[in-house]
Amino acid sequence: MWGGRFAAQPDDAMQAINASIDIDQRLWREDIEGSKAHAAMLAAKAIITPEDNAAIQAGLDQIAAEIEGGTFPFSRELEDIHLNIEARLTERIGEAGKRLHTARSRNDQVATDFKLWTMRATREASDGLRALQKVLVKRAEEHAEWVMPGFTHLQTAQPVTLGHHLLAYVSMAERDRVRLIGGALEAAWECPLGSAALAGTPYPIDRDMTAHALGFHGPSHNSLDAVASRDFALGALSSLSIAVTHLSRLAEEIVLWTSPQFGFANLSDAWSTGSSIMPQKRNPDAAELIRAKAARIGANFAALNGLVQKLPLAYAKDLQEDKALTFAAFDDFALSLTAMIGMIETLSFNRAALREAAARGYSTATDLADWLVRELKTPFREAHEITGKIVRRAEETGVAELALLPLSDFQAIEPRITEAARALLTVEKSVESRDCYGGTAPQRVREQAQRWMEMFE
Amino acid sequence: MWGGRFAAQPDDAMQAINASIDIDQRLWREDIEGSKAHAAMLAAKAIITPEDNAAIQAGLDQIAAEIEGGTFPFSRELEDIHLNIEARLTERIGEAGKRLHTARSRNDQVATDFKLWTMRATREASDGLRALQKVLVKRAEEHAEWVMPGFTHLQTAQPVTLGHHLLAYVSMAERDRVRLIGGALEAAWECPLGSAALAGTPYPIDRDMTAHALGFHGPSHNSLDAVASRDFALGALSSLSIAVTHLSRLAEEIVLWTSPQFGFANLSDAWSTGSSIMPQKRNPDAAELIRAKAARIGANFAALNGLVQKLPLAYAKDLQEDKALTFAAFDDFALSLTAMIGMIETLSFNRAALREAAARGYSTATDLADWLVRELKTPFREAHEITGKIVRRAEETGVAELALLPLSDFQAIEPRITEAARALLTVEKSVESRDCYGGTAPQRVREQAQRWMEMFE
Amino acid sequence: MWGGRFAAQPDDAMQAINASIDIDQRLWREDIEGSKAHAAMLAAKAIITPEDNAAIQAGLDQIAAEIEGGTFPFSRELEDIHLNIEARLTERIGEAGKRLHTARSRNDQVATDFKLWTMRATREASDGLRALQKVLVKRAEEHAEWVMPGFTHLQTAQPVTLGHHLLAYVSMAERDRVRLIGGALEAAWECPLGSAALAGTPYPIDRDMTAHALGFHGPSHNSLDAVASRDFALGALSSLSIAVTHLSRLAEEIVLWTSPQFGFANLSDAWSTGSSIMPQKRNPDAAELIRAKAARIGANFAALNGLVQKLPLAYAKDLQEDKALTFAAFDDFALSLTAMIGMIETLSFNRAALREAAARGYSTATDLADWLVRELKTPFREAHEITGKIVRRAEETGVAELALLPLSDFQAIEPRITEAARALLTVEKSVESRDCYGGTAPQRVREQAQRWMEMFE
Amino acid sequence: MWGGRFAAQPDDAMQAINASIDIDQRLWREDIEGSKAHAAMLAAKAIITPEDNAAIQAGLDQIAAEIEGGTFPFSRELEDIHLNIEARLTERIGEAGKRLHTARSRNDQVATDFKLWTMRATREASDGLRALQKVLVKRAEEHAEWVMPGFTHLQTAQPVTLGHHLLAYVSMAERDRVRLIGGALEAAWECPLGSAALAGTPYPIDRDMTAHALGFHGPSHNSLDAVASRDFALGALSSLSIAVTHLSRLAEEIVLWTSPQFGFANLSDAWSTGSSIMPQKRNPDAAELIRAKAARIGANFAALNGLVQKLPLAYAKDLQEDKALTFAAFDDFALSLTAMIGMIETLSFNRAALREAAARGYSTATDLADWLVRELKTPFREAHEITGKIVRRAEETGVAELALLPLSDFQAIEPRITEAARALLTVEKSVESRDCYGGTAPQRVREQAQRWMEMFE
Repeated sequence: MWGGRFAAQPDDAMQAINASIDIDQRLWREDIEGSKAHAAMLAAKAIITPEDNAAIQAGLDQIAAEIEGGTFPFSRELEDIHLNIEARLTERIGEAGKRLHTARSRNDQVATDFKLWTMRATREASDGLRALQKVLVKRAEEHAEWVMPGFTHLQTAQPVTLGHHLLAYVSMAERDRVRLIGGALEAAWECPLGSAALAGTPYPIDRDMTAHALGFHGPSHNSLDAVASRDFALGALSSLSIAVTHLSRLAEEIVLWTSPQFGFANLSDAWSTGSSIMPQKRNPDAAELIRAKAARIGANFAALNGLVQKLPLAYAKDLQEDKALTFAAFDDFALSLTAMIGMIETLSFNRAALREAAARGYSTATDLADWLVRELKTPFREAHEITGKIVRRAEETGVAELALLPLSDFQAIEPRITEAARALLTVEKSVESRDCYGGTAPQRVREQAQRWMEMFE
Repeated sequence: MWGGRFAAQPDDAMQAINASIDIDQRLWREDIEGSKAHAAMLAAKAIITPEDNAAIQAGLDQIAAEIEGGTFPFSRELEDIHLNIEARLTERIGEAGKRLHTARSRNDQVATDFKLWTMRATREASDGLRALQKVLVKRAEEHAEWVMPGFTHLQTAQPVTLGHHLLAYVSMAERDRVRLIGGALEAAWECPLGSAALAGTPYPIDRDMTAHALGFHGPSHNSLDAVASRDFALGALSSLSIAVTHLSRLAEEIVLWTSPQFGFANLSDAWSTGSSIMPQKRNPDAAELIRAKAARIGANFAALNGLVQKLPLAYAKDLQEDKALTFAAFDDFALSLTAMIGMIETLSFNRAALREAAARGYSTATDLADWLVRELKTPFREAHEITGKIVRRAEETGVAELALLPLSDFQAIEPRITEAARALLTVEKSVESRDCYGGTAPQRVREQAQRWMEMFE
Repeated sequence: MWGGRFAAQPDDAMQAINASIDIDQRLWREDIEGSKAHAAMLAAKAIITPEDNAAIQAGLDQIAAEIEGGTFPFSRELEDIHLNIEARLTERIGEAGKRLHTARSRNDQVATDFKLWTMRATREASDGLRALQKVLVKRAEEHAEWVMPGFTHLQTAQPVTLGHHLLAYVSMAERDRVRLIGGALEAAWECPLGSAALAGTPYPIDRDMTAHALGFHGPSHNSLDAVASRDFALGALSSLSIAVTHLSRLAEEIVLWTSPQFGFANLSDAWSTGSSIMPQKRNPDAAELIRAKAARIGANFAALNGLVQKLPLAYAKDLQEDKALTFAAFDDFALSLTAMIGMIETLSFNRAALREAAARGYSTATDLADWLVRELKTPFREAHEITGKIVRRAEETGVAELALLPLSDFQAIEPRITEAARALLTVEKSVESRDCYGGTAPQRVREQAQRWMEMFE
Repeated sequence: MWGGRFAAQPDDAMQAINASIDIDQRLWREDIEGSKAHAAMLAAKAIITPEDNAAIQAGLDQIAAEIEGGTFPFSRELEDIHLNIEARLTERIGEAGKRLHTARSRNDQVATDFKLWTMRATREASDGLRALQKVLVKRAEEHAEWVMPGFTHLQTAQPVTLGHHLLAYVSMAERDRVRLIGGALEAAWECPLGSAALAGTPYPIDRDMTAHALGFHGPSHNSLDAVASRDFALGALSSLSIAVTHLSRLAEEIVLWTSPQFGFANLSDAWSTGSSIMPQKRNPDAAELIRAKAARIGANFAALNGLVQKLPLAYAKDLQEDKALTFAAFDDFALSLTAMIGMIETLSFNRAALREAAARGYSTATDLADWLVRELKTPFREAHEITGKIVRRAEETGVAELALLPLSDFQAIEPRITEAARALLTVEKSVESRDCYGGTAPQRVREQAQRWMEMFE
C-alpha cells in the first residue's frame, strides 16, 4: 500500500525530488567553462589569489578530462552537477576549491550553465536545419521539372513541379533557422553570472569580464530577473515546436507519397523498416515517429510555459523541470532531423505516377480561365464560369485530361477558344506558364535552387 | 435527437462550417489595402486598364467608408470578408469589379491579409509592452530604496529593493518585445500576394511592386509555402504566450502582495472589485483574470500548432481556425496588458510591512558570510557553516533580526567578528552593499531606471 | 498609444474583465430552474413565506418566457446572468425578489447552474454519438463483405471488410459514450447548492430537497470543495477531447479515401464544397474542420486544467473562464458530430477501387503463413520466412496478387504447398477466414452489426 | 555538422527510432502473463501440443525469474520486450518457442500488455489517492474546530475550520478515484488479444479463455479498433491530469501556508529542504515539484491525444510514444502523491496564526447580514447594505474584529441589533453556525470525517 510503502522513507522520495544529477550532468561542460571564467575573474579582481586560481583552473581541467574519460565518480548524494564538480574539485585541490563559490550562488550558476547549453543546442539545431535544406535543394534541383499534383484539401488543384514542392520546405526551414538563431542571439545578450542568489553580490566583481569570456554581450541588468527567468528556454522550445511542425508536415507527405495508393515515392531500405513476411513492404517508421515527436516537443513547451506561469519571483523548485523538458525536446528534434535528412536524401520518386496524378481532375482548368482573361479580356469571374462548363463537358465525355478534349467541345461553349489555347492545357505547359517570381515553373525552381546554394556557401 | 435534428439540414451545418465572416471581417482593412495595391499593380502592368483601376480604387475607398460607418451589408451567404467586399465592389462599379481578382486567388489573398493583420497586432502588442515598461520604471524609481523580502521558494531569502523587483519585469518585457518585433520583422520579409492558388500565376505581374506597397521587403520565394504556411501566426502566438507568462507571474505577485497575509500593497478602487457586504475588501479580479488568460493564450498556440502539424501541402480547411485562435489571443493579451498597466499605475505599497517582512528569517545571513570571506579570508563554504551556527543562536535567543543579536553571541562562535560587521546586517545595509552591476542596491536601481528611460525616448 | 488609450478608462477594462453576461447567459435555463428549487425549499422550511414563494415561482416563469421570446432586457452593467435575472425578478415582483438570495451565494449558484448545464450538454453529446453509431452500423451492414485494404503505417497489410472498418469507430464511440455518461453520473452525485459563499450557511435549509429537485443524488459533502472545484467540467472536456480524437481519425480517413489518389469514396454534394472552375471537385471541408476542432477541444481542456492548477481554495476569478472554454468545446463537438453524421450517411464507396487496393502488396501473405502453421505444423517463425521467399518470387515474376502466382512457384520454395492452399489466397477467402470473435469476416461483421442494433433499441 | 555526422549511419538513427526496449521493458510482467495465457489457450484448442505448452510455461517462468533476478540479457538488436522474451524462450526451449506466436501478432500483444499495465497502474494510483485521503481525514479530525480564514481571491471571506478545508481535498480525491477506477473498469471490458495484426485470425482460438485468464470481461469486439485505439491510456492520462491538478492546488496552499507571510504551518524537516546558512529555513521543494509535475502530466496527455488525432487506422509507428508518455505520467504522479502524503502527515499548524488571520477583514460580516434576515426579516439584499455600513464604521473606528465593535455603533445604523446578535460575530460562533450539511461547523467536520473513515474500512 502506498502510504505504507513510502511513509517510512522520506529520504528516498526527497532524494528523488531533489537530485537532478541524472538530468543535469549534461551541463558539465558549461559548468566547468563557467567556473573557469568565474575563477579567472575573481583572481583578476584580487578576490582570490593567483595561486588559488591556478589550482582551480588545473583542477577543473582534470575534472573535465575525468568526465570525458568516463571516470568521474558521480554521486546522487551531491544532488546536482554543480555540487558534484565543486566537491570533486575540493577533494583534488583542497582549500582553494572552497573559494570558488565566492560571489556566486547556485542560482546564477544554474541559469548561466543552462543558458549556455541552450544557446549551443539552438545553434546546432539550426545547423541541422541547414543540412536538411542542402539535401532538399539538391533533390529539388534534380526534380526541377518533374510534374506532380498540387493539392488543396488533398484534392488535385493545379500541377506543380516536384522541385518546387521540395523547395517550399527550404523556405520554412529558413524561417525556422532565423527564429532559432534570433533566440540564441537574444539569449547571448545577458549573462546571469554575478546575480548570485537573487540580489547581486557585495564583492567588487567584474561582470563584463565573465560575460565576455563566456561569449555573452554583457551582464544581465537585473539579478532577480536573471535567476528567475527561463524565457530563453521557452523561446528555444517554441521555435523548436514550430520547426518540428514543418518536419511533421513533410513527414506526413512522405507517409502519403510512399503509400501504395499514392505510389509517388519509395523509401530506401536504410530509412524504412520491413517485414519478414512481406519483404517488399517498406514502412515509413521514421516519418511516423517525426509526427509523434512533433506532438511531444509542443507539449514540452506547453509544460514549461505552464509551469513558469504560476511562479512569483525569484527561484522556485518548479523550475528544476526546465532542463528535462528542454533536453528531451532538443534530443527529439535532433533525431527527427537526422531521420528526415536520411529519408529525403535517399527517397526515390516515380515520375510517371506523379505525372499521371498531376493530370487528373482537369487540373489545368485555371490555365484555360487565365487564357480567357488574358486573350479575350473576359472578366475573371465570368472566365471561371465558362471554364466550369467546359470541365463539366470533359467529365461527361470521359476524357482524362482537359488537353485531350476536342476543340469543338471547347468552342461549343466559347467559340473564340483556339487550338493554341487548347495546347496550353497540358500539365507541362501549365507549370511552365506559372513563371512569376516564386512560381512553380521549372526555370523558377532552378533559379531558387541557385539562390539557396549561393546562400549556403 | 441529434442525427434527426440535423440530418435534414446539411446546408445549415455546412454554412456553419464554411462561413468565416463572423471572424474574418476583422481583416477588412487589410483586405482593402491588399486589393488596392493589387489593382494598382495590375494597371501598371497593363493587365487591367487605368479606368478599371480608378473605379476599383474609388469603389474600395467607398466600401472602407461603409464598413467604418457601420453601413456595410455583411452577408453570411458570401462566406468571408473577401467575397463580401468583392461582391459589393462589383455591385457598385460593375464589370471592373470582376477584374480585380485577376492573377490572384483567395489563398494568397487570405495569407496576405492575415499576415498584415498579425504584423500590425504584433507591433501594437509590443507598443503595449512598452507602455507597461514605462509605468514599471516610474514606479520602480519611486520605490528605489524601499526594502522588501526577496523570495526563493516563497521563503524569505535576502532583502531586495522594491524598485529592483519591479525592474525585473521591465527586463522580461524587453525581451518579450524583442521576440515579438523580431517575429514581425521576419514576417515582413516575404509577401504572399501573387502566389495565387498555390502554383503562382501566368500573368506578367510585378510582385515587388505589391510587396513594397504593402510594407514587405519583397515577394515570397515559393508559392506553395506562401499559401500553406502559418508560422508567422505561430511565431506571434508563441511570443505572446511567453510574454503573457511574465504578466501572469506579476499578476500572481499582485494577488499575493494584496492578500491580507502579505499586506504589501493595496489595489486602487478602479482596478479591483468590491463587495457590498465587506466594503473594505478589494478583490484582485483583474490580476486573476490575467493568470487565466495566460493559460488560454498558451492553449491557442498549442491548438494552432497541433492543427498545422497534420497537414500536407498546400491549403486545407483546417487552417480556417487560424484566425479565430490568433484574434482571441491578441484580444486576451491586450486586455491583460491594459489591466496590468492600470493596476501597476495605481498600486500603493506599504513601506513598513515590506521592511518588516524583509528583516524576517535572518535574511541578512549571507551578508555575514560574505564579510567573513572578504575580511577574514574564510573559505566560502566554511563561512556558510559559521553563519549557520550564528543564525541558530539568534533563533534560540529569539531576536527578530540578525542585526539585533548582541556582538558577544557572534563572537562566541567566531571571535574575530567585529561591531562593524554586525552593523552591516541591517536590511538597509544589505541592499546597499549589493551594488554589482544588475544588483539590488538603490543606486543600481536608479541607474537602471535611468538607462530604461533613455531607451524609451 | 496603449497606456494612454486605456489608462483613463479603467471602467471599460474592468467591465470587460468582470462582465460575463455575453457568455453565461446560456445558463439562463439552469439558473431559473435552480432558483425555483431554492425558493420552494426556503418556503418549505419557512425561511420565506408561501406568498413570497408563489410570487417568485410566477416571476421566474415569466422571465423564462421573456428570455425564450427574446424580449428580456439583458444588461452588461448587471454583469452576469444571475444578477440579470434576480434584478428583473425584483423589478417585477418587488420585495419578495430580494428574499430569493437568502441562504445562498453567487458561488454555489454558479457552480450549480454550470454543473447542470454541463450534465445536460454531456448527455446530449452522448446522444449525438449514439446517432453517429447508428449511421455507422447501417453503413457497415450495407458493406459487410466489401473488401478493402487494412493498413498499418498506411501500407497495405491485410485485407479487411469495409463493414468491419466502419464498426471499429462504433466501438470507439461506445467507449466515448461510457466515458461521457460516467462523468455526468459522477457529476450528478453532489449538488453544490447550499454551500453558499464557501462555508455553508446558518439557515436551516434542506439540501436534500433542492438536490433531488434538480436531479442530483444528494448535497455535496464539503462546501469549500463545492464552490472551488471544476473537475466536473474538466472531466467532460477531457472526455470530449478523446471522443473528438476518434472523430478526427475518421475525418482523416475521409480526407484520404476521397482524395483522387485513393478514390475509395465520394462525398455527397451536400457535405462537401465545390469550385466554380472545377465543378467535379468535392472538397472535404467538413472533415478537415473536424480535425481542426479536435486540436481546439484538446486545447480547451489544457487551458482549463492549467488554469485551475494554480489556484488555492476557494473561488478565484480565474475560474470565470471555465464557461467560455466549456461552451466552445461542446459547440465545436456538436458541429463536428453533425458534420460526421452527415458525411457518413451520404458517403458512397467505390467497390472496385477498394477491392483492387486490397489485393495489392501481396496482402494475403499472412494467410499463406497461417496455412503452413496449421496444415504443415511449421513453427510460426519459420512459416514467415518461407512466405517471405514466396512473396519475393511473386514480386520478381510481376504477378499482382499472390493468388495469381502459379502453384509451381510456391512449390519451388515449399513443395508441400497445395492447390487448396493457393486457393485461400484471394482477398475474399482471406477476410472470410478471419472469423474469430471480433475478426473481419463478413459473418462476424453482420453479427456485430446485429449486436449493436439490439443495444440501440 | 549534422548531415555529415549522421548521414553515414542510418543504422544508428533507425535503431534509435525503432528500439523501444529501454522503455517497454517495464511491460515484461504483463508480456509473460499474456504469453502464458495465450499458450495455455493454444493448447486447450489443440493448436499446439500439451508438451509445447508445458515447455513454454516453464520457460516463461524461468525468464520471469531471470528478469526479476537481474540476469536477463536484454538486447537492443531485438528491439522490444516482446522479441527479447520470445527470442530468449526459443533459446531456452527450442522449437516450441517458435510456436508461441501462432495466432497472434505484435500488434495485439502490445495492446494487451500495455492495457494490462495501465489498468494496474491506475488501480495503484487510486490506492495511492486512498492513502492520501486517510492522512487528510486523520489531520482533519485533529483540527476539526481550528479556525482559519476561508479565502476567495486570496482575500479573507469567511472563517472556516481547518478540518473542513482539509476535507475538501478528500472529496476531490474521491472523485479522482472514481474517475481512475471507472477508466480501469472500462478498460477491463475488452481484451485485445486475438485481434492479431488488425484483422483477426483464422485459427480456432478461444478469445474468452484468454480474456478471462487475464482478468478481462471478454474479448474486444473489433480487431481493427483493438490494435489501433489507445483511449484506455488517454482516459488514464486525463484522469491523472485532473487528479494531479488537485494535488497542485494543495501544493500551492502548502507553499503559501508555510511562507513566513502566512505562517499558518510548518513543514517537517523530512519533507523540506534546508540551507546551510539559514538553518531555520525550510523550503517546500516537494510541494513546488508537485506543481511542476502537474504541468508535465497534463502535457503528456496533450501529446498523446494530439498524436493519435492524426492517425488513420490501424497501427502506425507514432503510437510507439504511448508508453514513454504514460509511464512518465504515472511515475510523476506516484512521486507527487508520495510527497504529498509525507508532507500532510507531518505538517504542523499554528493555531494562533490561523485564528488571528481568520478574524481579519471583518470576516463575520455575512453572519450579521444573516441575522438581520433571520431575526428582523430584512430582505437579503438590504441586509447586505446595512452590514456594509457597519463594516465601514468598524474600519473607521479601527477595531480589528466585528465582534469587538461597541453595540452602540451597530445600533447607530440599525437600532434593532441586539447584544445577542453582536455575540454571534466571533469567528468561533461563525463557524459553529454554519452547520448545514456540508458546512464548515466543527460538528459537521467530525461527521464527515466519520463518514469517510467508515468508507475506508
